[in-house]
Amino acid sequence: MTEFRSVTAETGLPEGEAFAVHGPADVAAACAAAEAAFDIYRATDRESRAAFLERIAEEIEATGDELIVAAMRESGLPRARLEGERGRTVGQLRLFGAVVRAGHWQGLRIDPALPDRQPLPRPDLRLRMVPLGPVAVFGASNFPLAFSTAGGDTASALAAGCPVVVKGHPAHPQTGALVAAAIGRAVRACGLPEGTFSHLVGPGNELGAALVQDPRIAAVGFTGSRAGGLALVKLAQAREVPIPVYAEMSSINPVLLLPEALKARGEALGAAFVGSLTMGAGQFCTNPGLVLAIEGEGLDAFTAAAASGIAAAEAQTMLTTGICAAYGKGTEALRNAAAVETLARGKDGNGSTRGQAALFQTSAAAFLADRALGHEVFGAASLIVRCADETELRAVLSTLEGQLTATLHMDDADTALAARLLPLLERKAGRILANGWPTGVEVCHAMVHGGPFPATSDSRTTSVGSLAIDRFLRPVSYQNLAPALLPAELRDEARGDGVPRLVDGTLSIA
Amino acid sequence: MTEFRSVTAETGLPEGEAFAVHGPADVAAACAAAEAAFDIYRATDRESRAAFLERIAEEIEATGDELIVAAMRESGLPRARLEGERGRTVGQLRLFGAVVRAGHWQGLRIDPALPDRQPLPRPDLRLRMVPLGPVAVFGASNFPLAFSTAGGDTASALAAGCPVVVKGHPAHPQTGALVAAAIGRAVRACGLPEGTFSHLVGPGNELGAALVQDPRIAAVGFTGSRAGGLALVKLAQAREVPIPVYAEMSSINPVLLLPEALKARGEALGAAFVGSLTMGAGQFCTNPGLVLAIEGEGLDAFTAAAASGIAAAEAQTMLTTGICAAYGKGTEALRNAAAVETLARGKDGNGSTRGQAALFQTSAAAFLADRALGHEVFGAASLIVRCADETELRAVLSTLEGQLTATLHMDDADTALAARLLPLLERKAGRILANGWPTGVEVCHAMVHGGPFPATSDSRTTSVGSLAIDRFLRPVSYQNLAPALLPAELRDEARGDGVPRLVDGTLSIA
Repeated sequence: MTEFRSVTAETGLPEGEAFAVHGPADVAAACAAAEAAFDIYRATDRESRAAFLERIAEEIEATGDELIVAAMRESGLPRARLEGERGRTVGQLRLFGAVVRAGHWQGLRIDPALPDRQPLPRPDLRLRMVPLGPVAVFGASNFPLAFSTAGGDTASALAAGCPVVVKGHPAHPQTGALVAAAIGRAVRACGLPEGTFSHLVGPGNELGAALVQDPRIAAVGFTGSRAGGLALVKLAQAREVPIPVYAEMSSINPVLLLPEALKARGEALGAAFVGSLTMGAGQFCTNPGLVLAIEGEGLDAFTAAAASGIAAAEAQTMLTTGICAAYGKGTEALRNAAAVETLARGKDGNGSTRGQAALFQTSAAAFLADRALGHEVFGAASLIVRCADETELRAVLSTLEGQLTATLHMDDADTALAARLLPLLERKAGRILANGWPTGVEVCHAMVHGGPFPATSDSRTTSVGSLAIDRFLRPVSYQNLAPALLPAELRDEARGDGVPRLVDGTLSIA
Repeated sequence: MTEFRSVTAETGLPEGEAFAVHGPADVAAACAAAEAAFDIYRATDRESRAAFLERIAEEIEATGDELIVAAMRESGLPRARLEGERGRTVGQLRLFGAVVRAGHWQGLRIDPALPDRQPLPRPDLRLRMVPLGPVAVFGASNFPLAFSTAGGDTASALAAGCPVVVKGHPAHPQTGALVAAAIGRAVRACGLPEGTFSHLVGPGNELGAALVQDPRIAAVGFTGSRAGGLALVKLAQAREVPIPVYAEMSSINPVLLLPEALKARGEALGAAFVGSLTMGAGQFCTNPGLVLAIEGEGLDAFTAAAASGIAAAEAQTMLTTGICAAYGKGTEALRNAAAVETLARGKDGNGSTRGQAALFQTSAAAFLADRALGHEVFGAASLIVRCADETELRAVLSTLEGQLTATLHMDDADTALAARLLPLLERKAGRILANGWPTGVEVCHAMVHGGPFPATSDSRTTSVGSLAIDRFLRPVSYQNLAPALLPAELRDEARGDGVPRLVDGTLSIA
């Protein structure tokens, strides 16, 4: 295959523009260019690098409605959502611009020489974080703007000083090409080497595999399926020089309904839950796919309201026919599981592009007996697990795999129970929230969009928010280097530039 | 085998105390105890945890000369070195006590709610770092105190809030038992659960493998051979839930002799080099195993001085007969390599416990043609690579694997050359030093004892210095949690406790 066409999500047909399929030679060329750009790009000062990120944001905005129309056609997502997502994308780039300027990410540390120390003098030691090298970014299907070509992985890698080679998602090649062109204009406008950013596209897995195996690639960012993420991790570990893979893969995002909250507002919670579950056809990494509740007053009101909301839910166009088929299989498996009751189905889909919402219910005992009930079904499906008491709730929680989020719906009178559950939730999830819904991931400094395996392949990181920059950095220590050789930010005269430094263990900002 | 005896390094004979060989049941019991201790230990406040680390230091000091005598017998290292190493060990524990108190490692971030933000309000988001869980630590043979039972890995994991299960090095079981007993006394004195620290011993690899495979272990710290480290990485990745392994494995620590420095003091550099190379029988991770020099004035003076120093070097007792045998094999391979010239051998060893120092020389072309010449020979052996010019020097550097250190010997007039080489050195090593020797690793805030693969299995980390604590932490974000449920350090009233917080992107210390 030498070219492939952009598919319209609504019809599932290849109705859009044709794109050349990139092959091994394109991967090698992009990686060689990224390698050649690395030393130049990483040497940019903070202001220039921040201005570059902001210029990318401007260029994306300048692409105008053409971008929204392309993304609507390719993803099936509605205009309002995509306009919001564009806002998030450019906001994210600007946030990383501000982060680069602030400079905390450099992790500066200075231990001045102690020439008179006994029995041995201490040398002068200075530390900063340096970028890892060229980064491969795999665009996600479910955020064609905010987690694809110029999404969070790209923004944080560029912020860290790493050139980026994007493997564009084949579900939205036209959207990706428009964004890649915008980034290319920013690269040229800022006088950066061409290899600072490259964009490769093609269906199938060969392209991505070749990219991860290229010896010039130093790290990988990925958002997608568990199978896809694990395959990349395996390739990365089998390299002569293994590299880190930040794969955001799989999460069912347990929502805990605590007794007093259920009692007080079971019905309202049921209605709100449906809103979170069905938004964007349920195609969120943080979709509430599991509800855990202790039997008691309000639970029936919750399930009744949720079931009625689901029954009224319109079928929605899914991102790809493949995702729609997988969703159909996943809901079918739940429907056929002996111990699972189907509480409600949404309006019927068309079988190939529209997903039909689904709500199921089972007992804690049944859930504990069948690990398959805890697998992610990507789309607007959720399973309510009725627990007899706190002990059963805790047993279910304990068997769960790592999660991106865990949600508590609670009243003040539930506080003691919530406090008992918190240590367990902290071990299971990267974000714990109260009285809200896990969909809606704020891009800010205190966000963690990450979590224990298999939510991600590296629980020590986040892929959303400013802390995401840390994934692409490593520390280097400089011992007794003359000022002329020291990186500018580690020289004595740089003190007072507003960047925090840990000097002899004490943090100073001035 | 149910027990094994402590071996005297000097004789290579099992002359010491007998120790029970721990098996799978002991591993399971230690991991269960660590798991049971985790929630209690990680909930300790900073002051209590710091006091615990300091108490361990006191208990080690209280062990007195018995510890030094045991370590001397088991390691063959001299008294002065081991007394210094004990000082380093307790200093390291106290440093981490201070680090725990200062609290930077918690990485506190607060993005307050913006209820009036349009189009959507922002929730309240607060982030802190939490410990990963029980950590397995593999003691190193070459630092029986500072990088073994109560060494840097143990100190940093305990500082992070992780219980530790040590797999003691079988080369110094008596030393390990004395230190483990000291830690046990500190655990009890501080009223901590027994499972906060456990110590397992035994020869062979089964014990360590069982430990890494135990599902309750959340991370691994290791210092040792490349084969050993890679085996643990493989086991950790094959688990149902993969875990991070911080393995410090292999480095030949290139020392670059720049032309002006060579011209000015070739002979003095040669003599000083021998001091660094032969110290501790060359058994340092940062031993200068490779010297890179550009042909020119002073290089012959360097090699002559180095050769004469090596020829005069006494054979030294090595840590184990296995290490001595491997050292013999490694030097033999270099001696037999066609393109390698033997410049000098030290005084003869006894063949089984004492290592004979060795100095070799080859050309850049020969080095580039045979990757085996770049393999680590653990002990007092080094290879000088003569490069015709900067281009050849750069070619040799480029082919090197990742390193813990890279050293520049330079004068002011070498600055331009050094500046050209620095970007390459930054990509190859975790620490770059000028006009010193890589042996001697300062335990401080700005130290990096780490580096690109295969120097370590994770270039993003250091195993020495206060930054080592970050290896055992992961971020958790709390969204809209009521103050009663928030961790104390994230509540509003905790502000002003002197711990830095990133509030809305701005760092505040007050």
